[in-house]
Amino acid sequence: MTKYVYEFADGNKEMKDLLGGKGANLAEMANMGLPVPPGFTITSDACRGYLATGHVPDGMWAEVADHLRGLEMRARRSLGDVRDPLLLSVRSGGKFSMPGMMETVLDIGLNDATVAGLAARSGDERFAWDSYRRLIQMFGKTVRGIDDAAFAGVLDDLKSRRSAAADIDLSAADLRELVEAYKKVYRDHVSDDFPQAPHDQLNQAVEAVFASWNAPRAALYRRQERIPNDLGTAVNVMMMVYGNLGSDSGTGVAFTRDPATGARGIYGDYLSNAQGEDVVAGIRNAVPLDDLATLNPSCFAQLTRHMATLEKHYRDLCDIEFTIERGKLWMLQTRVGKRTAAAAFIIATQLVDEDLIDLDEALSRVNGAQLAQLMFPSFVDSTDIPVLATGVAASPGAAVGRVTFDSARAAERAANGERVILVRRETNPDDLPGIVAAQGVLTSHGGKTSHAAVVARGMGRTCVCGADSLDIDADGGVFRVGDKTVSDGDIISIDGTNGKIYLGEVPVQDSQVVAYFETGLVGGALVAAVHRLLNHADGKRRLGVRANADTVDDALRSRRFGAAGIGLCRTEHMFLGDRRQLVEALILAEDTAARQSALDALLPLQRTDFEGILTAADGQPVTIRLIDPPLHEFLPSLEELAVRVALAEERGIDVDHDSRLLAAVRRMHEENPMLGLRGVRLGLMVPGLFAMQVRAIAEAAASVAAAGGDPHPEIMVPLVGSVLELEAVRDEALAVLAGVPGAPTTPIGTMIEVPRAAMTAGRIAQVAEFFSFGTNDLTQMGWGFSRDDVEGAFFPRYLALGIFDRSPFESIDIEGIGRLIQIAVADGRAARDDLQIGVCGEHGGDPDSVHFFHKCGFDYVSCSPFRLPVARLEAGRAAVIAAGSDSR
Amino acid sequence: MTKYVYEFADGNKEMKDLLGGKGANLAEMANMGLPVPPGFTITSDACRGYLATGHVPDGMWAEVADHLRGLEMRARRSLGDVRDPLLLSVRSGGKFSMPGMMETVLDIGLNDATVAGLAARSGDERFAWDSYRRLIQMFGKTVRGIDDAAFAGVLDDLKSRRSAAADIDLSAADLRELVEAYKKVYRDHVSDDFPQAPHDQLNQAVEAVFASWNAPRAALYRRQERIPNDLGTAVNVMMMVYGNLGSDSGTGVAFTRDPATGARGIYGDYLSNAQGEDVVAGIRNAVPLDDLATLNPSCFAQLTRHMATLEKHYRDLCDIEFTIERGKLWMLQTRVGKRTAAAAFIIATQLVDEDLIDLDEALSRVNGAQLAQLMFPSFVDSTDIPVLATGVAASPGAAVGRVTFDSARAAERAANGERVILVRRETNPDDLPGIVAAQGVLTSHGGKTSHAAVVARGMGRTCVCGADSLDIDADGGVFRVGDKTVSDGDIISIDGTNGKIYLGEVPVQDSQVVAYFETGLVGGALVAAVHRLLNHADGKRRLGVRANADTVDDALRSRRFGAAGIGLCRTEHMFLGDRRQLVEALILAEDTAARQSALDALLPLQRTDFEGILTAADGQPVTIRLIDPPLHEFLPSLEELAVRVALAEERGIDVDHDSRLLAAVRRMHEENPMLGLRGVRLGLMVPGLFAMQVRAIAEAAASVAAAGGDPHPEIMVPLVGSVLELEAVRDEALAVLAGVPGAPTTPIGTMIEVPRAAMTAGRIAQVAEFFSFGTNDLTQMGWGFSRDDVEGAFFPRYLALGIFDRSPFESIDIEGIGRLIQIAVADGRAARDDLQIGVCGEHGGDPDSVHFFHKCGFDYVSCSPFRLPVARLEAGRAAVIAAGSDSR
Repeated sequence: MTKYVYEFADGNKEMKDLLGGKGANLAEMANMGLPVPPGFTITSDACRGYLATGHVPDGMWAEVADHLRGLEMRARRSLGDVRDPLLLSVRSGGKFSMPGMMETVLDIGLNDATVAGLAARSGDERFAWDSYRRLIQMFGKTVRGIDDAAFAGVLDDLKSRRSAAADIDLSAADLRELVEAYKKVYRDHVSDDFPQAPHDQLNQAVEAVFASWNAPRAALYRRQERIPNDLGTAVNVMMMVYGNLGSDSGTGVAFTRDPATGARGIYGDYLSNAQGEDVVAGIRNAVPLDDLATLNPSCFAQLTRHMATLEKHYRDLCDIEFTIERGKLWMLQTRVGKRTAAAAFIIATQLVDEDLIDLDEALSRVNGAQLAQLMFPSFVDSTDIPVLATGVAASPGAAVGRVTFDSARAAERAANGERVILVRRETNPDDLPGIVAAQGVLTSHGGKTSHAAVVARGMGRTCVCGADSLDIDADGGVFRVGDKTVSDGDIISIDGTNGKIYLGEVPVQDSQVVAYFETGLVGGALVAAVHRLLNHADGKRRLGVRANADTVDDALRSRRFGAAGIGLCRTEHMFLGDRRQLVEALILAEDTAARQSALDALLPLQRTDFEGILTAADGQPVTIRLIDPPLHEFLPSLEELAVRVALAEERGIDVDHDSRLLAAVRRMHEENPMLGLRGVRLGLMVPGLFAMQVRAIAEAAASVAAAGGDPHPEIMVPLVGSVLELEAVRDEALAVLAGVPGAPTTPIGTMIEVPRAAMTAGRIAQVAEFFSFGTNDLTQMGWGFSRDDVEGAFFPRYLALGIFDRSPFESIDIEGIGRLIQIAVADGRAARDDLQIGVCGEHGGDPDSVHFFHKCGFDYVSCSPFRLPVARLEAGRAAVIAAGSDSR
Repeated sequence: MTKYVYEFADGNKEMKDLLGGKGANLAEMANMGLPVPPGFTITSDACRGYLATGHVPDGMWAEVADHLRGLEMRARRSLGDVRDPLLLSVRSGGKFSMPGMMETVLDIGLNDATVAGLAARSGDERFAWDSYRRLIQMFGKTVRGIDDAAFAGVLDDLKSRRSAAADIDLSAADLRELVEAYKKVYRDHVSDDFPQAPHDQLNQAVEAVFASWNAPRAALYRRQERIPNDLGTAVNVMMMVYGNLGSDSGTGVAFTRDPATGARGIYGDYLSNAQGEDVVAGIRNAVPLDDLATLNPSCFAQLTRHMATLEKHYRDLCDIEFTIERGKLWMLQTRVGKRTAAAAFIIATQLVDEDLIDLDEALSRVNGAQLAQLMFPSFVDSTDIPVLATGVAASPGAAVGRVTFDSARAAERAANGERVILVRRETNPDDLPGIVAAQGVLTSHGGKTSHAAVVARGMGRTCVCGADSLDIDADGGVFRVGDKTVSDGDIISIDGTNGKIYLGEVPVQDSQVVAYFETGLVGGALVAAVHRLLNHADGKRRLGVRANADTVDDALRSRRFGAAGIGLCRTEHMFLGDRRQLVEALILAEDTAARQSALDALLPLQRTDFEGILTAADGQPVTIRLIDPPLHEFLPSLEELAVRVALAEERGIDVDHDSRLLAAVRRMHEENPMLGLRGVRLGLMVPGLFAMQVRAIAEAAASVAAAGGDPHPEIMVPLVGSVLELEAVRDEALAVLAGVPGAPTTPIGTMIEVPRAAMTAGRIAQVAEFFSFGTNDLTQMGWGFSRDDVEGAFFPRYLALGIFDRSPFESIDIEGIGRLIQIAVADGRAARDDLQIGVCGEHGGDPDSVHFFHKCGFDYVSCSPFRLPVARLEAGRAAVIAAGSDSR
C-alpha cells in the first residue's frame, strides 16, 4: 500500500519529489538531531491523487491520524486540549519553490474552548485572542475563499469605534469581540459556522492546500516558470512554536556565509519577541544576528553550532529560519541559500579549500549566467546611495542617463551624444527606436517577459521593469515615487542586475573579471575564484570553444578570452565603408568586364582583411564564411530612394544616377530578403564573386605562410539547402585553391542553417568536410519567423502565454530546432565519421544550449568574444555534470 | 564469368537495364521471329567497366569476336570479304532514350579493297564510294574527334571545281577522288592513316561509343533529365541493310495506330530507293505508307502482319523503322510509340475494348500531365495554317496576341484591353510585369528551364521558347524568320503544347474535356475515354480529393469537377474590396471599443460568406482556414504612401489621414512579412479576430442547418509551430462554438507548414483533430526561400545547373521536404490513430506529388478546381500502380 504520510524522521533531503523542498530539508534536519518542532509531511503523491479524483486517497486520513498521535506524544500536548492545546501549522511545499503562490494556515487547533488554554499557557490573553482571530481569517480565506476585505472591513469598523490607530491598540477584550464578528463574517459568507473541531480544521486545511495547486495564479506562475503542471504539492504539518511570548522569545533568519560577498561568518537578522510574519511586515527593526550573542548567549551558541553542522552536512551556504520560544531554540526551515554571482564563485572555491567539495563539484555550483553578470560594468559600491525604487532585474548592466519619456526624443538626445534612460509605463513596438537609442529602459509595468524586457535583453540594453511604485505621467514629463518627483531630463541610474533605481548619477566601475581576461592578471578573491574554476573547466571540457570574429581586434581579443580559433569570420562587414562604391559598381555592372573590374578592385582589399585575421589567429583554425547577405543590403533603401527621386523630379533636379540606382533597387527588391537571393545562391548567380573571395583567402594564407606564419583557413559556404549547391561551389573553390601556389590545405564545409540541409545532412556530409550549425537562421526558418520582425512584435505575448519559456533565439529550442540538429548530426556522422561539427549561431554562448551541444557530440561551439568565458565554463560544467550522471 | 555480349536471340524486352531500350526491343523482335538483321548487343555493364578503368573488360573482345563469327554465318558474308563484304552498323542505346546525344558509326567494313566488292554486289559504284566517304567522315568524327567542317571544306572545294550544285551531281569518280581527299584530312588531323582493317574499325567504333557516354553534351542532358550518370550505354552491332539499291528497295517508319488521334489503322511514311538518313535529310518527299500496298504488295502484307503481331505482343501502339532491300523486308527498330495526350486516352480504352489490357493497365498508361494538357484551350485544327517556326513547348495553352518586344509596352497594351505576346531573345527579372500582362511568351533562346519557361509555367502563361530560327531585333521593332519579317503590333499565335508559332490569328477552341466536366455530358471518343478512365480511377483510389475554393462559384465548380468537399477555404479574400475600410479601421483602432466595433461590422459579412460556401458544399466537409496573411497586406504599400505623403507635403496639401496611415504602415512594416506577424500569431495578438471568425462559421453553420442543410465546417489554424499556440486558439474556439446554439460539431485542426510543426507533430496531434500540410510554406521555409522572390531570380539557373530537376513548388521535393512530411505523419498518427491527414498546398494537384502523398498514407489531397481531375486520375493511378508492384 502506498505510504502517503512521512514522519520527519522518515525522510531525507533527496526526497524532494515526494516531500517537496521544505519537507525534505525538515526531515534532513530532524535526522541530524537538530531541534525541529515535531511534525510530518503528506506527500505530493497524495496531492496528485486528490487533484485527479477530487478526494484524498483512501487510507490517507487514517495515516494522518496515526502520525498526529505520534506528533502529540512528542509534543506532549493534544490537539483540542482545552488546558494546553497543541496548535499546528499547515504549509504547502512543492518540489520547486513557488514563492507566495500557495497557501498556509497557522494556529490550527484554536476554538472557543482552547483559546482559553492558550491564554493560560502563554500568560497572554491578548496573544491568544489575536491568534484565534487570525486563524478564522486565514482559514476563511484559504479553505472557504472568503475575501480578506470582508474581514478588514469589520476590523476597521472596530478600530474606528475604539479610536484605535493600529491593531496593536486593540485590547484583549476588543479582540475577543473581533473573533465574534469574524465568526459572523464567516457564517454570512459560507452559510456555515467556523468549524470548532480541531480535526476538522486540520483536514479541511490540508485539502485546501492540495486544491491551491490549481489556483489560477499558481497555474500561471508554473506556466511562466515551466514547472510541470502535474507535480502537485506536499503538505507540512508541524507544531506551532511562538517567538512572541516575551523577551526570552524571538525569531530570525541566518546565513552560514555572507550571500553578497561570500565572506565566511555569521550573517542574519534577529527580532526579539516576534513571530516570522512580523519580520516580513517590518513592524519593528531587526538587529544583526551577532547581537543574539548578548541577548541569549546559550541560544546563540546552539544556533552557531547548528549552522556549522548544517554547512558541513550540506557542504554549502545554508539559509535558516529559526524561532526561540521562551529560551528554547527551534529550527523551522533550512535550504541551500541563494547568493550573488560573485559570492557563488568565491564560496565554491572556499569550499574546495575547506575540503568540503572537490573542483568538479565547485564547477557544477557556478554557472555561465553568473559569470556573464560579472562581466558587465557595475555601480561602484552603492550601499550609501538611497534607492529610489526597485523593480524587476530584467536585463543586466549598470546604466546612467537622462529620463526621457518618448522614443523620438530619446533618439534625438542620443543623436546629440546624450545618454538616455527611456522611461515608459510599458513599451510597445513603436518604442524600438527609443530602446535602440537608450542606455537602459525603465518601466513601471510588466515582468521579465514584458516587451521592454524581451527587447532590451535581445539588444543587450540594461532594463529594470515592473517598478510599480513609479507613477509615470509621460504627458506631464514627470514620474513620481512616493513624495519624490523626477522630471524629463533628470539623471537617474538603473541596475539591471538587482533592479535598483537611483536618483542621480551613480559612478560605474568596469568589471574586474573583464580586466582579468584582458590582462591575464589574477588579483582579488573574485578573480582568483573565476580563474581557478575556468582553468578547471578548460581541463575538463570536451567541447572546443572558438570565437565569432570579423576584425583583427576581435580576433586578438578572442585569443585573450580563451578562444581556440575563429569559428565564424563573416565577410560582409568587409564590403562596407569605402568599399560600398565597389559593391555598387558590381551590382550595376551591365557586362562581364565591368563586373570583373569591380571584383578585381575588391580582391586586394579582401586579401588584406584575411592576412590580418589569419595572422592574429596564427596557428589556429579560422572559419571564413563566404558572403551571405543579399547584395541589395549594400544599396540605399527603396523608400528613401523613391522619395528622393520623386522630390528631385518635382523640383526639376537631375536624377540620372539616382534613377538608375532606384531601378536597380526596385529590380533587386525582395519581399522577404531573408528568404531571397543570398548565401550560396549569390555565389551561383554572380559569376566570380565567391571565386574572388576564395582567391583572396588562398593568397592571404600563402602570404602569411611565406612570412613564417601558420595559417589555417577553412572555407564555409552559407545557406546550403542541397548537396548539389555545395558541390558546385566546392568544385569552383578547389580549382581556385589549386591555382594559388603556397596556399595551405583548406577544408571546405557548410553552414547547416536551412531546415532542408538538416533533413539531407547525410548527403551533404559526403561533400562537406565540416558542419557549422547556424542556429539563428535555423531557428528563424524552422519556426518560420524573422527575429527582427517578431521579437518585439509578439514574443512578449508568447512568453506571457507560456508558449515560450524564453526566446528561442536566446536558448536553443531543444524540442523542435534541437531535433533538426540531432537528425543532422546523426546522419552527417553516419556518412563521414570524421565530420567536424560546430555551431556559430548566438546559441554558442548560451549556457543551456552549450550543454545541449555537448550532449549532441559537437566538436566545438563558437560565440562572440565576450561570451567565450561563459562558453568555456559551461562546456566544462557540461562535461563534469555528464560524467557525474554517468557514474551514478 | 560475366557475359558482356548478347546475341539478339539471347535477350528480351525486359532487359533494358543491360541491353538498352533499342537492344532489348531488337532482341524481342528476333525472338518473335520477325526479320531483324543479324546482330548482337554489347552490354551497358561492359561500358561501365570501360568508363571506370579506361579499357574494355577482360574477355569482352573475345566474346565480340565469337558473336561476330555467328553473325557472319547468319549473314552468309564475312567482314573484309573483298568480293561480298559484310558491313556493320554500330549504334549506342542506353536504358533511357537520349535523342541525338550519342554516337553511331555506319558502313563499318569498307576499305580500299572491299569498296569494290560492295560496288560489284550492289551494281552501283557511286553508292559504294559514297558509302566509303561517309564512313571515313563518321568514323573520323566519332572515333577521332575530327571536326565535320574539315571534311565539308574538301567536299565544297570539289563541288566548286566540278561546278556541282549538290552532292548528287558528283560522279562515282568524283566520290572516289573525295575518298582520297578525306583520307588525307584524316591523316592530317590525327597523324594516322584511316584504319583499313575492318576489325580495327569495329573495335575502335565500339570504344568510341562507350566513351561518348561522358561527352559534355550527353552529361549535361542527363543532368537536366535526371538520368543517373553511372548507367552507361549498350552498343548494338548489326548487319547493314540498304534501302537505296533500286526501286525494289526503300525505307520507312510506321505506327500501328494514329499517334495524333488514336484512330486504328496503318500510319507512316515510305521512301522508295532511300536510306533512313535520307528521310531525315528530306531530300525527297516520302509517300504515305498505304502507297506501299501498290508499290510492293508482298512486303506491305508482311509489314502489316508484323505490325499486328507487334501490337498484340506489346499490347500498345508501336512505332517501327524498317528497310526493304531488294524486295526483302527488314525490321530495324521498334518501341512503344509516343502519342498525343488525346491519343493516349483513346488508345488506352481501345485496347481495353480489344481485350488486350484491363482497365487498371489502361489507367496506368495515361497520366495527369496529359489530362491537364487536354484541359487547356487549343487551336482549332491548324494543319492548313503554315507554321512560321517551331520552338520548345515550354508551358501549355494556345495564345494569340500582338507582338510586343518590351515589358512596359506589354503592360500598356494589356491595360488598354489588347492581347499581347511578349517576344524576347530571353527574359530576365525585369520582364516580370510584361509576362504578367501577356497572353503568352515567345523567346528565341533557352529551353524548358529558361527564365521565361519557369516563370510562365509558374503563372500559367503559355510559353514557347528557344525558337532559334527567330532573329529578333527588338530595337528595330521586328523579328525575322527566314525571309519573313514580323513587326511590333502584328498578331501571332503560339501553341505551348507543341511549340508551333503561326503568323496571324488562329481560332482557339475551348477544351472538350472541360466542357464535359462542366456539363457532365459524355460525347466523342476523347471525352468517352476520359470519362471511363476517371471513373475507374475514382473506384480505385484510396485518397480523397477535395478542392481549394474560397467562393461560392469555385465551390460549385469543384463539385462538378468531382471534389468530395473543400480542403482549403481561405478567408483573407473575404477582407478585400469594400471591406478594406473595416480592416483599416481594425488596424488603426486605438482602443478595445474601436477594435470591437470593426470586428462587429465584419461578423455578419463573414457569416454570409460562410453560409454561401457551406450551402454550396452541402453534405461535404469544408475546411476553413482562419485568416493567415499579415494585416498590413490590406494597407497600401510603404513606398507608395511615403511618396504620396512627401509630395503632398511639398505641395502644401493636407495629409492627416495619409500621415496616420503611413505611421501605421511604417510601424507594421516587416522586413520579412512571410516570417512575421501572421497566421496563428495574429490570432493570439489581435484580441477577438479569430473569435469573430469562429463565431461567423458557427452561426453560418447553425443557420444552414436550421434551413434543412447539412453543413460540415472544420476549423483550420494556420502557421502553428508549437502545440501551445494551437491549444490556446482551440480553447478560445471551443468556448465560442459552445455559445452558438445549433452549431454542428466542428473539428479543429492545424496546417503543418512550419518545419517545427513537422518536428513536433506528435505533440501537436494531441490537440489537432486533423493535419493539413501546407506544402507551399513548408517548401518555402524548409528550403529558406520565398517563391515570389526566387522563382524568377535564381530558379532558372538552378534548373540549368541541375540542382533542381524541376521547381520544388511544382512537385514536392521528396528527399528534403518529403522527409519532414514523413516524420510528421508517422509521429502524428502514433499520437492519434484516427488523425485525418491531407494536403492543401499546390502540390495537391501535381501528379508525382499525389503518388508521394498516397505512399505516405494521406487521407486526401486538396487542390484548385481545375486540377481536381488530374488529382483524381493520379490518385487512382497511384493505387493501381502500388497494387501492381505489391503483387509482383
